[in-house]
This record gives sequence, structure tokens and C-alpha cells, in this order.
Amino acid sequence: MSKGKPTFQDVLLGLQDYWAKRGCIIWQPHHTEVGAGTANPGTFLKVLGPHPWNVAYVEPSIRPTDGRYGENPYRLGHYYQYQVILKPCPDNIQDLYLASLEHLGIDLAKHDVRFVEDDWEQPTLGAWGLGWEVWIDGMECTQFTYFQQVGGIDLDPPSVELTYGTERLAMYLQGIDSAFDLEWIPGVTYGDVYKANEAQWSVYNFELADIPFLQRAFVDYEKECERCLERRLSRPAYDFVLKTSHMFNLLDARGAVSVTERTSYIARVRTLASKVAETYAAELGESVGDGMADGSDAGPNGVGAGVAGEAWISPDDREARDLLLEIGVEELPASACRAAIDLLPERVAGLFTAEGVEVAPGDVQVMVSPRRIAVLIEGVPGEQAPRELTQRGPAFEAAFDAEGNPTKACEGFARAKGVSAGDLEVREEAGRRFVYYVARSESRPTAGLLPDICLKIVRDMYFPKNMRWGFRDVRFSRPIRWLVALWGETVIPFGYAGLTSGRTSHGHRWLGGPVEIRHPRDYVEAVRSVSVMVDHRERERLMWGDLERMASEQGLKVIDPMGKMEEVLFLVEWPTVTQGQFAAQHLSLPAEVLETAMQSHQRYFPMLDAEGALSNRFLYVSNGDPACLDGITAGNERVLQGRIEDAEFSFDKDRATGLEAMAAELGKIVFHVKAGTMKDKTERLVALTNYLAGVCGAPGEVRERALEAARLSKADQVSIMVREFADLEGVMGETYALMEGHHAEVAHAIREQFLPDAAGGAVPASLPGALLATAEKVDNITAAFACGEPPTGSKDPYGLRRAAAGMVAIAMEHGLHYDVEELLDRAYDQLERFPSLVERGTVVPEAVDFILERLAKVLTDDGLARDTVDAVLQTSRDFLDLRLRALALHQFRSGAQWDDLVTVFTRPSNLAKKLPTESAEEAGAQPQGGVSPALFTAEVESALFAAWQEAVGKVATAIEGQCYGEALAALASLRPVVDRYFDDVLVMAEDEAVRNNRLRQLAAIAGTVRGVAWLELVQG
Amino acid sequence: MSKGKPTFQDVLLGLQDYWAKRGCIIWQPHHTEVGAGTANPGTFLKVLGPHPWNVAYVEPSIRPTDGRYGENPYRLGHYYQYQVILKPCPDNIQDLYLASLEHLGIDLAKHDVRFVEDDWEQPTLGAWGLGWEVWIDGMECTQFTYFQQVGGIDLDPPSVELTYGTERLAMYLQGIDSAFDLEWIPGVTYGDVYKANEAQWSVYNFELADIPFLQRAFVDYEKECERCLERRLSRPAYDFVLKTSHMFNLLDARGAVSVTERTSYIARVRTLASKVAETYAAELGESVGDGMADGSDAGPNGVGAGVAGEAWISPDDREARDLLLEIGVEELPASACRAAIDLLPERVAGLFTAEGVEVAPGDVQVMVSPRRIAVLIEGVPGEQAPRELTQRGPAFEAAFDAEGNPTKACEGFARAKGVSAGDLEVREEAGRRFVYYVARSESRPTAGLLPDICLKIVRDMYFPKNMRWGFRDVRFSRPIRWLVALWGETVIPFGYAGLTSGRTSHGHRWLGGPVEIRHPRDYVEAVRSVSVMVDHRERERLMWGDLERMASEQGLKVIDPMGKMEEVLFLVEWPTVTQGQFAAQHLSLPAEVLETAMQSHQRYFPMLDAEGALSNRFLYVSNGDPACLDGITAGNERVLQGRIEDAEFSFDKDRATGLEAMAAELGKIVFHVKAGTMKDKTERLVALTNYLAGVCGAPGEVRERALEAARLSKADQVSIMVREFADLEGVMGETYALMEGHHAEVAHAIREQFLPDAAGGAVPASLPGALLATAEKVDNITAAFACGEPPTGSKDPYGLRRAAAGMVAIAMEHGLHYDVEELLDRAYDQLERFPSLVERGTVVPEAVDFILERLAKVLTDDGLARDTVDAVLQTSRDFLDLRLRALALHQFRSGAQWDDLVTVFTRPSNLAKKLPTESAEEAGAQPQGGVSPALFTAEVESALFAAWQEAVGKVATAIEGQCYGEALAALASLRPVVDRYFDDVLVMAEDEAVRNNRLRQLAAIAGTVRGVAWLELVQG
Repeated sequence: MSKGKPTFQDVLLGLQDYWAKRGCIIWQPHHTEVGAGTANPGTFLKVLGPHPWNVAYVEPSIRPTDGRYGENPYRLGHYYQYQVILKPCPDNIQDLYLASLEHLGIDLAKHDVRFVEDDWEQPTLGAWGLGWEVWIDGMECTQFTYFQQVGGIDLDPPSVELTYGTERLAMYLQGIDSAFDLEWIPGVTYGDVYKANEAQWSVYNFELADIPFLQRAFVDYEKECERCLERRLSRPAYDFVLKTSHMFNLLDARGAVSVTERTSYIARVRTLASKVAETYAAELGESVGDGMADGSDAGPNGVGAGVAGEAWISPDDREARDLLLEIGVEELPASACRAAIDLLPERVAGLFTAEGVEVAPGDVQVMVSPRRIAVLIEGVPGEQAPRELTQRGPAFEAAFDAEGNPTKACEGFARAKGVSAGDLEVREEAGRRFVYYVARSESRPTAGLLPDICLKIVRDMYFPKNMRWGFRDVRFSRPIRWLVALWGETVIPFGYAGLTSGRTSHGHRWLGGPVEIRHPRDYVEAVRSVSVMVDHRERERLMWGDLERMASEQGLKVIDPMGKMEEVLFLVEWPTVTQGQFAAQHLSLPAEVLETAMQSHQRYFPMLDAEGALSNRFLYVSNGDPACLDGITAGNERVLQGRIEDAEFSFDKDRATGLEAMAAELGKIVFHVKAGTMKDKTERLVALTNYLAGVCGAPGEVRERALEAARLSKADQVSIMVREFADLEGVMGETYALMEGHHAEVAHAIREQFLPDAAGGAVPASLPGALLATAEKVDNITAAFACGEPPTGSKDPYGLRRAAAGMVAIAMEHGLHYDVEELLDRAYDQLERFPSLVERGTVVPEAVDFILERLAKVLTDDGLARDTVDAVLQTSRDFLDLRLRALALHQFRSGAQWDDLVTVFTRPSNLAKKLPTESAEEAGAQPQGGVSPALFTAEVESALFAAWQEAVGKVATAIEGQCYGEALAALASLRPVVDRYFDDVLVMAEDEAVRNNRLRQLAAIAGTVRGVAWLELVQG
Repeated sequence: MSKGKPTFQDVLLGLQDYWAKRGCIIWQPHHTEVGAGTANPGTFLKVLGPHPWNVAYVEPSIRPTDGRYGENPYRLGHYYQYQVILKPCPDNIQDLYLASLEHLGIDLAKHDVRFVEDDWEQPTLGAWGLGWEVWIDGMECTQFTYFQQVGGIDLDPPSVELTYGTERLAMYLQGIDSAFDLEWIPGVTYGDVYKANEAQWSVYNFELADIPFLQRAFVDYEKECERCLERRLSRPAYDFVLKTSHMFNLLDARGAVSVTERTSYIARVRTLASKVAETYAAELGESVGDGMADGSDAGPNGVGAGVAGEAWISPDDREARDLLLEIGVEELPASACRAAIDLLPERVAGLFTAEGVEVAPGDVQVMVSPRRIAVLIEGVPGEQAPRELTQRGPAFEAAFDAEGNPTKACEGFARAKGVSAGDLEVREEAGRRFVYYVARSESRPTAGLLPDICLKIVRDMYFPKNMRWGFRDVRFSRPIRWLVALWGETVIPFGYAGLTSGRTSHGHRWLGGPVEIRHPRDYVEAVRSVSVMVDHRERERLMWGDLERMASEQGLKVIDPMGKMEEVLFLVEWPTVTQGQFAAQHLSLPAEVLETAMQSHQRYFPMLDAEGALSNRFLYVSNGDPACLDGITAGNERVLQGRIEDAEFSFDKDRATGLEAMAAELGKIVFHVKAGTMKDKTERLVALTNYLAGVCGAPGEVRERALEAARLSKADQVSIMVREFADLEGVMGETYALMEGHHAEVAHAIREQFLPDAAGGAVPASLPGALLATAEKVDNITAAFACGEPPTGSKDPYGLRRAAAGMVAIAMEHGLHYDVEELLDRAYDQLERFPSLVERGTVVPEAVDFILERLAKVLTDDGLARDTVDAVLQTSRDFLDLRLRALALHQFRSGAQWDDLVTVFTRPSNLAKKLPTESAEEAGAQPQGGVSPALFTAEVESALFAAWQEAVGKVATAIEGQCYGEALAALASLRPVVDRYFDDVLVMAEDEAVRNNRLRQLAAIAGTVRGVAWLELVQG
């Protein structure tokens, strides 16, 4: 390393030198475009199989969407990754890695270096792993990943991947704010070499690349890949995987991939990648078998592994003692820390009590910091509580004769238990006395149980996500690097994952060092002495206290809108709350954008002034040396500044473009290959919104705003902000619409189209929003069914269940009356021009059922019985009407007239089934249900006919007024005449005409009831 | 560099380290497939424009055709180049480069390191340069090139490009014979990493790649490139140039590119590359102007540049002295050496005599070795020979009066010359006396002229190819690195190309060192003292002497079939003839293959035994330290072994395939996009050969052999050998045909199809060969015309002029009679099924004219007058017949009857033009030319008519027998009656019928003459 600030080349050659000396092959970038070093076959293929493989290389990484025309100093469409792969993972990999930074000249002790959870995934390559982003003073400089799968194949052994962001590292080392100002070698800057390149490629990628060419090339490469796979040529096939992937990236940059299409493209690439990985792995298998590489067995994985120089406790010692188990780990994710805190007391107490050692969950103290999970229990009993095992024998009367001597039965029982009758005890059970055999267990010393308990605590720990790092059966949230286990002053001997327990803990990476724990009660202070505040509750109190104090000292209020404290809590072991700021001119950006910049990645805490306006000051929590805060803060400020400028850049670009221009570009984003582009989708939304406004009787002004919102609803999909932060979809549309002077309701409706965004979430507040949100959802549903992709079983990739529930919720909230079948018909009309859709006759009924099923769920969630809901579900197509019907039926079922109604319905309904089919069909089509009074032979027939006619009238009026209770009551009131009818009339008369006329009468009555509710679906 | 043998990684990192320390940016391989580091934009674009740019990088180079399934240890379809670009070129670049080899641990003094002329060209990129392959002990390890043009643009300043073959270097350093055995890092071989890769890519590239996909992709990339160029996006456009180029390479490997198509593909890529270069250069111009970079001015470029510490000779010194001029250069090509030897005596002598110093060409000794051109002249006169300038004045009589005093005229003349009348001299001229003004030039000392003469010798030297290396107006065969110029013991002061003259020469690179030349006469021995045998004649004598002696001592005879001595002569300064050998088992290969391996690249001398069989011993000339010959020979043997094994590999593959299988593959090689594949071409050749055999009356056996040869004629285009050594086209076909047991004439005909292969070259010896060769040529010609690509002006890319001349030569040699128009018609028949051809009515007549024009050239080259040839050219379509006619006319023109014939033809022919057009047309169609004896009015008319009738009969008989002299004589014999006719008859009679009858008679006579020769085309 040269004196002075290292050049960019010094960084590259420094890393090369460092890793070459550590046995890595220095590899070359791949000969086709890749988005990351992972895609180089030197990683993707070589991490498969058991062979050791250590490699390091520069990879010029091409990410078309990241290009910024060379105008943004932090974002490049082409940049240099430095990639390292080590297989198997060395135990000291974190130290090895950190030493590489020192090798570049960074004095890590003066900085805040963090391992921030980042679970890496590359869906197109079927690859994922767990690990971190490594930060220096807030700047992400390396991706550190334990690969778990590649091409869908479990890695055995896993590899570790280090990916250095070389430009960022060099910028950091040179203390500059623009990649283009980097000194590459003396006299040559990065900008000299690459600025024009960035500008030109941005033009090509964003504006010029020929979309049909890219689409065709994708398909061509895909085919060529498959042809290679047929010949089992994994390596050429893999190149074509990369080429399909690059075509996808280019299409993406051109904005020519919709959310829906994205899924399909990614799946296609992943499928190829998986086949390539399988083929390659099979080649390896053929040539070398599938043996495990060196060092991959689990090592001393069990109890009793002794600790050099320390003797385990005497086997007879039964003294109560304090227990400490500290699992030293590489930096844990917050979620794993929280899982440990939540689950361990119960689990640890359970392990003890299962062994008869009395430990309650409340006795188990769990303390968690990023690099350790500590379990501390004071005063654990020194031996098992006595336990007895009882078994009941004969009843007292049968066990002893009158003299009180044991009977034969009693002695037989005693003999079977291996004792004499005199050893049996008499106890009372449920008021009767029996003889019992009672065995008392031996009370073993706790000490003997501890190695096994400790092993189980570690081995069986449950985390949301687990990883392997080199031992076939060992999984944990992150690799375990040391084990401290103390029983009083003595080490509890056990081993796991290649480690043996001891008393040496490790402090803060730079502010601490190793520390011997003498006794569990010393633990908290011992690790504090090496700068670890191990108790998370203490840390949290301290941080909130300082945050609030520092804010209020300036008349400000600290906020945490995205709830980042939980993450910060488990990122620091030695927290110092610190203040930084960004340039005040950026305050003109929308607060949401600034808060996103501060919180979403950096986890800083914004502050508000008394008026609730955002301050340009912020607070953050350092884990570095409190003596070095100035430098650390400067670094964090620089990073934030970059993020804000980046957001500002995108924001300004978008504003310059404008929503109208964005909307005009929607034709190039495919919504679904079978259902057109986002432009087509927009047109459908306009039409459906218009229809809904009509049937819902929206006032003209509302209709206009809803239509304007529909027209612009998807425009922000073209914006850079949304392409970068997909969460801001709708939010940016609203923001830009407001800035462009659209009516506030138009703007809000654009954002509200996606509401409710969770089950039970808020629905649009405005009526235009409600109409547009309904249109958006009904189109999604109809399109999915029409494209042959309805939700099935657990699969609902487009979230259609939520969409349907949302339609219901919106209709309820805003009192929107519409016929859902009619609406789906209109939605299908809009789609009809696309070829290769499922036909209307299938789509509409199935979608209606699907949506009504959601309605049913809403109603049952509201407490209605499922059969109540089912009874009404086919009687209307209007959600509100259906709800009223269901509520009415629900109420009626608990009322006095329910029996009457059931009676009125049941026998007529059952008898009506005897009506010959053709007659039944005729009957329904005739006036008066085809009942002919001329055929009546009994007076009561006329009476029933008259009563029914009257009830029909009342029911019609009640339905008209949606007074379904009244309708039901009117029907129930037929009970007396119905009863009389069956008393007086033999329905199944000899005369066929008479008989059928009577059956028609009964069918008509049942039919009238079913017009209100299908009572045959009501259980009992 | 680690101890022991360097690993492959040591080589890569060693070069990186070396060049990084010399200010190079360490660049990365490009992100799309390239065949060489040159194609990386870090070279292609960055060498444009004036900015200094020093860069070094590894480039994994992909050359699909070089793949060998991982079965050949020397050939890889994917290998690592190490590329260095330095702009401007440093003066000490050769030393810098050689030091990089020393840095890798090679002790160059122990080896034979050579700079072997290699003028590099990359046609697809419009790039070329002059330079060398650098050899170590016969192994090519680096390409060293002074770039002159890239993308068709002159580089200003030029760059130097070094391209190391890293695998070869590492193999050399590790002393191994297979790239796959290279140790990459300890424990990992190159084969571990790349062998499977090679095998799989070979399958893909040679067998699997989808040809229509590649063709489509080529066009797609080409379009995308053009779209980028429209937007002036040079960098994205350049990527697409590379992609088209890669598609072309893949098509080539798949054997899907014919020779014809190749030209078109390369032209398309080059056109794009040139446009990219222009666009990029324009960008540079816009941003920085076009100023020259530092160090690019010509420096002390002129006379009189003093030499430190030495004084130039006294201006009055007129002593005769010896002169020495030594131009020290980087290694010259043999052709440049020869040009210097041939041209310098005349030119140098000319420069002296022009200045009045008497030096004859025979006085100028020129001695040339690879690194110097020396001019030595003994005893150059010390001053100019006296010269006088005279000017004539008045005549003596006018100049002096009777008293002998000058007249006014005389005095006026004297005054005008600035002298007095007494200074004029009287001299005699052509018998008369005049006064003369005579000026005698001052005789200047030679010394004063020398700086200018030396400068001119260097500056105006002419070489077949010249290069620039950093000075805008300085061109030479290779860079000039020192100048020695002595006039006796004194340095002649002048400067050129940044150098000043001196007395220090430089010896052999490793066996010598700098040497001071005291005096010209010491020169030869002085440089001999530093191991340079500067006199090429001496070197050649020595080498031939040793070669012959060493061969004959073993009972062998040395041969030089490809004439390599001339190159060897100018590759060595200190020659040692040395012997090596290759494994005797390879002697089973055809001698041609082995000789090619020994001579074509390595320039070794094969030896034959007494029976004329090739020995496995060979001789070569080392330029290295005679004390290190063992190592040098071992190296050379290893290289030859590799080349032979490579050839053997290809040869065995081809034999295993067999000609029939090759022929079956011809459908995938396109002959011309508009004229089908090589399979189509083969079918055409079979048909045309068959036709020719018929019309030429070939015996059945000949016809069969010719057809068999035609059927297999193109098969070897599919062979690996021909794909690698295009020169062996036909040769390999013959070889394989013989091995497969085909009749020798069939085999020979396959080879002979391309004969004659140069103007005036040998024609096929066999009749089958003659027929096939004719068919091959007529198809080439017809196809080119039909495809709309006839030769134009100086452009004849398909060599059709040679082909047509070949047809003529073959017909002459073998006495083949055929109607060329008919033949072309048959050739067109064969092509007719292809769409988009030029129509037959255009193609056939134009092609006939084109071919007859070649015949005309053959005949005029044989000494016939052009007008003689023209006179007969339209009278037949049979080359042999035409030649007989021309010869007869030629002879007749110098005979006694010529005037008679002219008379017989001329007046009738002229008068016949007065015949009304319609009558003339009728007349030709009628018997007796429409002449009606009934209309005769004079006796002589009847006499002429009778004589003409008789002559017509004689002419017909003579033509039948091809006795054209007799035919002409018969016509000439009409002279008396013709004369009489014109004496007695007024042709233009009043009576129209009489007149026209007479004109018809005359037209008929002229027509009969024109049936033998068009005399109106004969001049005088």
C-alpha cells in the first residue's frame, strides 16, 4: 500500500494481494454481462459440490437500472465489485475479512464497523444465503454472505462470499463524495475513465434499447440454454442463463416489465439456472462422488468434551449454584435476538424441570447482544427435587381381609412390582381407598445433568431462519464461535459445532478483547469491562433516554416512524447516541422521502420541531469508540447526504418528466402477457370506474375526479422513485399529482387505489378513491381468472383474496351498491379483445363465487353463522344487500317465528321435489307458479293460495325496502294455513292433474321463501 | 515472485505488478466475448486521440475455432492474454518489455530471444500495426505491435501493444508440455479449472450452436449498433460491434461461413467498427481539441545537432576520408533489409553525385543485420569536383567588331551577368562561335555536405511498409534507436526522430553491449567484438556452409522448400547452426504437413535422406549464446513437437471423419448468400463438369473420374486442416482422397481444381483436373455476375480475372473446345433456381465479354496486336478457334496479300453502309445475300458475283478446317475483279433497284470477310 491516500487501483490490487496470499485463485471477470460477482461461474458453479475452492476477483458489475447518466455521484450502472469465495468457510472468516480492510489502511478501531443483517437472495439464480452488509460509519462497504443454496441446491459445505464495493471503499479512503472524483492512479480519475460510459449507457438502457429485440433475444438465449442442457453442457448453458438474465435486466431498465411479467421472467431464468446447477452437480458427482470436504464433520459435538486444565465438578456435589451459558456468535439478526428473548425462558426452564430440577421460566434471565446470547440462572438447585412414581393396585377392601392382612391379590400385585405387600401404601382416590405401589426416584446432582442440558439449549434453539456454515447437521441463526458455560465457578464441559465450552468470553470487537468469566454473577460486569452492555433492556433504556434527552435539549422531538429501534438495539453492544445533520436545503423534499432516506436503510432517528416539521438534524446510535465520534459522525453524514442526493436526483427527474408524460409511457410496461400493458390496464380502470360511478350514483364531480385519478393511476410506475422504492407506488403518484396542481381528491385517490393494503386495513377515505380502488381490484381479479391464473390452494401470488375482501370492505364502508356479476361482466368486456383468454362463461361465474366467498368470510368474521351466510349468498349480487339479508336471517333464527318459517318451508320444499321435472320447470315460468285454482278440491287449498298470494306481495314490498326481517315474518305467518293444509289435504292425490297442481302450489311457496333465503342450507 | 517454478498465477500477478509499477492502469477484461485484448475498449477506443494512456490487463480471449475439446494440450478456445498498451510509445519500450520477462524469472541471456516480424492486422476492427512476435527459443510468447490504425483511423500518436501468451509463458517457465498441467496455484491445475470448459464449449461451438440463431443475432446486433451510432453512443455501439464479431466467430466455428460470405461479414463488422471509432474520436475532439500529446514532436530533426563533447571537423578540411553511417533500429523485417541492400547503393551515390562529390554506386557498401543498416564508403573525395555553369551570349560576329573589340551587345550581355566583357569566353557550338558567360562553382569541402546527406539517407529511405512510432512526420520500417555517423574519425552531426548522431553502436542484445566506433574501417570488426556479424553476405555464407556440412556429415541433405533462408538471414546477428529432432513416430504424417510445421512458422530446415525421405532431424539457426545451445535446442524441439502434435491431432480428426462425411456437411457452409451453400456449389460443379466432359469429348473413364472429383471437390473445406491452414485447400482433399483409396486422378483433380493459382501458373496436368478446374472457374464467374458482384475497375475480390485467364489457359493446354457462351448458359441454368439474381440476358453476354477480354489479354501478351485480336473476337465463342483466327490474321497482315484483302473489304464495306437499313437487313437473310443477277447491267458484275460465290465456297471449307489463312487468301484473291468492278461500274446508279442490288453485292462481300475477321477494327 502506498503512502498517503490509497488510489482506486491500490484498493483493487491491495485486495488482490491480500487474498492471493491467503491461497485464493485470482480469477477474472466473466466474459458476458453479469450484475454481480456471484453470477460469475467462478462462484455460481464452483460453490457446488464438496471440493475446496478459494477464489478472489474483480467483477465489473452491470446493473442497467442503476445508471444515472453519470450525473449522480453515488450511482453507477457499471461498477467494480471485489468478490471472494472461500469453501469451506474458515472459522476465523470475520477476522480474515476485517484484516483485509486493515490491509487497505483502515484503522478499524477508530470507526464504527458493523455487521448488519442482510439476508441475500438472487431469485434469478435460485441462490440465497444469510449474512450481513458490513458498514463502516454507516457506509455499506461489503456484502458478507454464508451461501446456503445456489441454483436451488443445498450447498455442502456452504461457502462464504465477500463482496466489496470497491468504489465506496475507495471513496471512503480518499474522503471524497463522488465516485467520478476517485483517483484511479495518480493523474487519472474514475470519471476520466467511466463518466462518458455511464452517460452513454444510461441513454441506451433507458431510452434506446430496442424492446422487441430484447424480448426476442431473451427467448433465443433461453432456447439455446435448453439445447445445451439437453447435451448436458453445463458451462455453455450457464452463459445463456446469464444472457437471459441480462436481457431481463435491460427490459427492466427500459421499463418494459410489469410486476406480473417480472415474476414470470424471473421464474424462467431461475428454472434454467437450477437445471444448470443440477447438471453441473451431476458432472461433479460422476467424477468425484459426493463425499464431504475436509473439516465438515461436526467435531466434538456432544457432552463431556473436557476443557484443558479444568476439572469438572465432583460427581457428588449437590450444592445450589448460579448457572451461566453464553453462546458467542457472529452478529445476529434482530429477529433472532428477539426470538431468543421470547422463547428461551420457557425452553430452558422446561429442560430443567423435565429433569426434575426446579427452575421456573421467571428464574431464567436471558440477555442478548449482537454477538452473544446469555442465559443466567441464579441459585439453580444442586439436585433434582425428589419424585415419586405411583401405580394403583387393588381396592382396599380387596387388598386386605377382615384381619387387615394382605390378600392374595394384594401380594400378587406387590410381587409384580418387586416389593413386598408391606411396602405398598394406601391412599384415597375419588373417595375410595386403594393400595398403591410408590417408587421414589433417586435425586441426582444437577451438575451431572448440565452438559446435556447446555447442549440441548444450543442445539435445539429455534430461530425464524437458520443457516449452516460447515457442519452437516448444525444449524443456527449465525455461526457459533465460542461457548461459555459455568456452574458456579466451574466450566460445564460440553461441545458443539467444533467448539468446546470454556470460561473465555469476548468483548466488543475493538473496544474490548477476551475476558475470563470467573463466576456467573460476575458476568454482566465482566463483559461490561470489555465494552459490552449485554442486557438489551438496559441498552434500550439508555438509548431512548439519550435520544429523548438530546432531542428535547434542542426543542425537538425524536421519532421512529418505521420502528427502527428494535434493529438498532441488536446492532450495538456499546451504544452512544450521537447527532448528525444534513444540508438544510434538502428540507424542501417531501418529508416522506427524507424519512425514508434516514430510516429505511440507515436506521437514523429523525427529529421534528415544535410545528411538527422535519429538522435537518438527526440522531443515530454509534457502536464505535466514543472518543472517535467526530470521524464516525462525519462518515454517517456523508452516507446520508449521498442517499438524500440520490433520492433528490430521482425525484427531480420524475418531476421534470411529469405524470402526463409518465402515463404516456405506460404502453411499454406489460401488465400481463395475456392482458396487455399498463396502458391497456389504465384504459380498463377508466371504463370500470366510470361504470361504478354510474351504478353507485356518484355525483358528477366525484365521477370526474375518479376518472382523472384512474387515468393517472399507474403513471408513477414509470417514475424512477417507484422503480427504486416499490413501496412508494401510489405515494409518489399522489405526491406528484399534488405538486402538479391536481385536485387533492384526485391525488388521494391515486394513493388510495391500493387500499386496503392489508387484511382489515383502512379503506379509501374518499369516494373517488373508493371507486378507483374497486375498479383496480375487480380488474386484477378478472384478469387473473381470464389469464388462467386464479388463486389455488395456498397459492395466491397476485393477492386476489385480499383484493376481493377489499372490494367488500370498500362497498360496506362507502355504501356502494353494485351487482358484482354485472361488474365482472363489464370487466370482462374490457378484456375481451385480448386473445387466448379463458372464456367469459367460465371466468365470470367462478370469479363471482370467489368474491362472494370473501364476502362470506367477512360476514362470518362478523359473527354470523356460516349456514346463515350460505343461505342468502345466492339470493343477490349486491354485497350490502347480502349483508342485510344475512343479518335479517341471523336475527330471525333466534326469534319466535323461526319454527314457523321452517315449517312453512320444509314440507312444501320436500314435497315439491316429487313434481315431475318438466312440470316443475313449466311451473316456475307460469304466472302464479302454474297453480290453477280450478283444480282445487278442498277449501283449504283456496285459503292457502290466497294467503300465499298475499305473502308474495308483502315479501316483494319488503325486499324492495330491504326489510328482510319483514319478508321472513310474512312468510312465517303462513304457518297456520300451511298446517291446516296438510291436515286436510292428501297432496299425493290419485288424479295426476290434481296432484301436480298441489305440488306446484307447494313448490311456489318454497320458491317464495328461497327468494329471501335458501333455508335448505340452514342446519337445524 | 515465489521461489521455485512460478505458478500460472505468479505469471499473471507478476505482469500485473510489473506494469502497475510502471504507471499502467490495471484494467479488467471486457464484459462481452472478445477474441483478443485488442478488442477490449480499454485498447480499441483508448488508443484513439492524443491523450496519454497506459493500461495493462488480463483478457480471457475466446476463439471458438481454436477449441479442441480439451484434447489438445496446446490449443484452447478460451485462454488468457496479458495485454499492455502504452501511449505514447516509450523510447525504451523493447527494454521495458524484456525486463518484464526477467521480472517473471527468465534469464534472457541464456536463451534465444527474437523479434520476428509480424505485421498484425485485425480486419474486423479495421486495425493494423507493425511489429513482431517475440520468440524465446522458438516459442512465440508475445505479440509486440506498434499500432498504426484502429477503426480505420491513423493513430496520433501511435500506441505500442504488448500481448503476452500467458499459458505459453507459464508452460515454458514450468517446463511442461500441456496447458492443462499448468500449476495455477499450488494444488490446482489449469486443467482442473478449464479442461471441462474446453470440452463443453468445443461441443457447443462446433456441433450445437444454432446457426439460424447466430445469423439472426448478428443482424440484430448490427441494427442495435447502428441505432446507437445514430444517437452517437460510441460505447454501447462498440459493445454491439464486439457482439457481431463474436457471432461471426461462432458461425465460423460451426463451419457456416464460406469464403465469399466471410468477406461480407468482415466488411460489415469493420464498417461498424470504423463508424464507432469515428464517433468516439469526434467525442474526443469535441472535449479536448486534437492537440498532440507530450513528446510527439520530432525533436532535433535536422542537420547540425551537435554531439556533446565532440567538435565537428574544420570547415576547410578537404581530405578524402572513409564514411560510415549506421542506422540502429528495432528488429527489421527481412523485406526491409533486402530493400535497403537493393536500393541504398544507387540512392547514396546519387546523393553524393548530386552534390558534386564523386561516389559511384559500386563504392557504397551496404551491410544489414536485424538491428542495423550500415553504409560504408571508403575514400570519399574530400571536396566537390569542380563544376561550371555556362550561358550562351551573342554570336562571335555580333559580339566583336572588326577590331576585335566588344560590341554594345557583348557588353550588355556581360553587364547582365555582372561581369565585364573580358570575363566572357568564346566557344564553338555546332560549328559556330559564340561568347559565353562561364561561372565556375566553388568546390566546397565534402564535410560540410555530410550532415545533410546523412539526414536525407535516413529520412528518405524507402521500405515496402513504413510505420510511425511517435513523431508525426517520421516513418521508417521500424523505430530508429541510434545513429552512428563518422567521417573518418569524426562524428558527423545531425539529428532525426529525436536522436542525435554519435559513435556509439550497440552489439548483440545479450552477447554484446555498446561499442564505440573509432573509424569507419574499424566498423565491421568493432561490432563483431560485440557479437554482431553485420555483413549479411558473410552470415549467409556461414549459415549455408554449416547447414550443408552438418547435413552431409550425417548423409543427409538440407532443404529449404519454402525458401526461409532469406528470413533467417535477417533474424540473426550471431548465427549458430544447430540441430534438433522430433519424435520419429511423427514421420508417418504426410511430408507436406511436417514440412509446413517445420518451415511455415518456425523457419527450421528439414533434411532428406538418400532416398529423399524426410528425416526426423532438422537444423535451425540460433541467435543465442553458443554456450547455451542445449537449452535453446530443447526449447525449439518442444515448440516443434507441439506444432506437429497439433497438426497430427487435426489430421487424425479429419481422417476419422472422412471425405464423404465432410461432403455431407457442405450444406452448412454458405458459398454466397444469393447462390446457396457449398453443397449447392458442388452440385453445380458436377453438372458443369459433366457438360464439359460431353462437349469436349472426354472418354468415359475421364468423365467418371472428373465427376467423382467434382463431387468431393469441396469436401476438405469442412476439414480442420483447411480451416486452420487455408493454403492447404485442395491439398488436403487430395491427400485424404489418396488415403481413402480414390483413383490418383480423382485425387489430383481435387487439388488441381484451383489451378492455375497465379497468373501464368501451371494448369491441371490431368484431363479430369482440367474439366473440374474449368467448371469451378465458370461457376465462380457466373455466380459473381449473377449475384450482381462483377469485378469493377481495380476491384476483383473473388479473383475472377485470374479465373477467366485460367479457363483460357486450361483450354489452350488441353485443347478443350467448347462454346463459352453455351457454357455460361449452362452455368446460369444451374443457378437459375436461386431468387434475386441478375437476369440471364444481362449475365451471360457480360460474362462472355469479360472472359473474351481475358482471352484477348492472353493473345496480346503472346505478341498479337490488340486490333488483330479485336478483329476476330466476335467471330467465334471457342477460345482455340479464336486463337487460330487471330494467328492467321496476324500472319496475313505481314503478308503480300494484305493490301489486296484490305482493298477487297474496305470500299465494299464503306459503300455497303449506303444500303438502306431495311434492304440491308433483308439482304443478309436472303440466299446469295439478296443479290439478283437479273439486275446486273455490266459484265464485271457477273464476274464479281461468280468470283464471290467461288470465294464463299472456299472460305466455308477453310473455316471448316480452321485454315483461316486460306480463307483470308481466298478473299484477297478477289482483288483484281473488285478493282475492275469499281473501274467499270458506277455503284450509285440512278435506278434504285440496280443501285441497291449493287450495294447488296458489296455488302455480301464485306459480310463474307467479316465472317473471318472484322477488318474494320484493324488499324491501317
